[in-house]
Amino acid sequence: MKFVRYGARGAEKPGILDSDGKIRDLSGIVGDIAGEVLTDLGRFEDLDIGTLPVVEGDVRLGACVGGTGKFMCIGLNYADHAEESGLAVPSEPVLFMKATSAICGPNDPIIIPRGSEKTDWEVELGVVIGKPAKYVSEENALDHVAGYCTINDVSERAYQIEHEGQWTKGKSCDNFGQTGPWLVTPDEVGDPQNLSMWLDVNGERVQDGSSSTMVYGVAHLVSYLSRFFTLEPGDIISTGTPPGVGLGFNPPRFLKAGDTVELGIEKLGSQKQVCVADS
Amino acid sequence: MKFVRYGARGAEKPGILDSDGKIRDLSGIVGDIAGEVLTDLGRFEDLDIGTLPVVEGDVRLGACVGGTGKFMCIGLNYADHAEESGLAVPSEPVLFMKATSAICGPNDPIIIPRGSEKTDWEVELGVVIGKPAKYVSEENALDHVAGYCTINDVSERAYQIEHEGQWTKGKSCDNFGQTGPWLVTPDEVGDPQNLSMWLDVNGERVQDGSSSTMVYGVAHLVSYLSRFFTLEPGDIISTGTPPGVGLGFNPPRFLKAGDTVELGIEKLGSQKQVCVADS
Repeated sequence: MKFVRYGARGAEKPGILDSDGKIRDLSGIVGDIAGEVLTDLGRFEDLDIGTLPVVEGDVRLGACVGGTGKFMCIGLNYADHAEESGLAVPSEPVLFMKATSAICGPNDPIIIPRGSEKTDWEVELGVVIGKPAKYVSEENALDHVAGYCTINDVSERAYQIEHEGQWTKGKSCDNFGQTGPWLVTPDEVGDPQNLSMWLDVNGERVQDGSSSTMVYGVAHLVSYLSRFFTLEPGDIISTGTPPGVGLGFNPPRFLKAGDTVELGIEKLGSQKQVCVADS
Repeated sequence: MKFVRYGARGAEKPGILDSDGKIRDLSGIVGDIAGEVLTDLGRFEDLDIGTLPVVEGDVRLGACVGGTGKFMCIGLNYADHAEESGLAVPSEPVLFMKATSAICGPNDPIIIPRGSEKTDWEVELGVVIGKPAKYVSEENALDHVAGYCTINDVSERAYQIEHEGQWTKGKSCDNFGQTGPWLVTPDEVGDPQNLSMWLDVNGERVQDGSSSTMVYGVAHLVSYLSRFFTLEPGDIISTGTPPGVGLGFNPPRFLKAGDTVELGIEKLGSQKQVCVADS
């Protein structure tokens, strides 16, 4: 199943895709694709989707999950991306947080902060938690996953690296976390470690990778993070990016107002963003 | 005015202290001390608190603010604490995030994670955002502050420092963010840069400082952070700790199950926690 959230920002309604790819309105059944709804998405398997109202017109898509408490990111989780960044593969997963206020819809603009000169892109496999997880084994970890989605972990490299310690500052700007279009349930995804992923800037392919080269896979990450805190329904783990970010080019390439970014992950759908200068 | 949230975890009700220090129930007037309620706490100035129901009995206090989206912390923001940590005073504020799932009531236990041997304490002045802030000047920054509170920025030093990159991992464990007892409005606090602050472990004073020695003050921090993202009502900035954390002792001292931690900040009230091993 593919779940979406659609409508005006902050007032998104829940929806589900039918077999024709049309959005069907779920708001008569649940309030949001969030919280405890994520714990039992299986309840929708018996639903006759064809009886739900079709959402007509060209609606905005919001982030495919609501109520996210933790927007966790794993750094340097592709060996070849670590290499392009000039950094060693870490001996265990590197965790940093993006502000949840950075989360936005898959096609919402990338807002380049005032004065920013080093805004960069990162296509990432997003893992959405469905059931609370604390001290879970790697064996049981995937039972706690509600589904997967495409994420653009937009990053400002000067803020991340050149302005004193900790990466959060360069990862958390408004609209630095396009999430969606769909939350896809695990049964439709199959092996999360075998998904191709790509990102184009102004039509030129710059990232072309696969989750198969991830250093620490999804099951390991869920188990590992659950040692440190309770993972809650709606929490997102963005699992790192393959090679091809702007910082890795020689010379580096960064986004400017007017640029178009398109990205996608096999089975999880694609995003398209225009870059705009912050007002 | 002093606002509180009381009752069972996850179901806290809003309250306000009367002149005798009793909690008066605000739940007939607002749903929570959260979100847009924080934008206009002045509305309660004309309230005849004496007409509100007294909350009887020994109730649990929750975190004094609800709906926190960003739990931001400033690292090394006291020159003498930086020195005890063996680190230089940063040239601009160091930002890291604590998971919002770490937020708990002021007297809720410190939960020592399984296998943890380096759980540490940090008394900090917490700043709660009232009005959205983006690109605000230092001059106008304090207009965006709803109030102040006491925070224990509990930290696991091995997770923070010895387990690969970024501090978040050691700052975000469950119950690593005691917040309260009260959200105190700025008119009652006066100058936020002149508050004494202290922390005792098993009755021994280990931290004894003042916000007067903060490197980057509250107005600067609000302005600075608003360059990177929108600060939203309910967001918390924990502004760093003065000297005396366990890591700074020679040899270092850390918390173990059964230890008692008490801490407080002038005008903002005190907290008392017992340390327990995670089950």
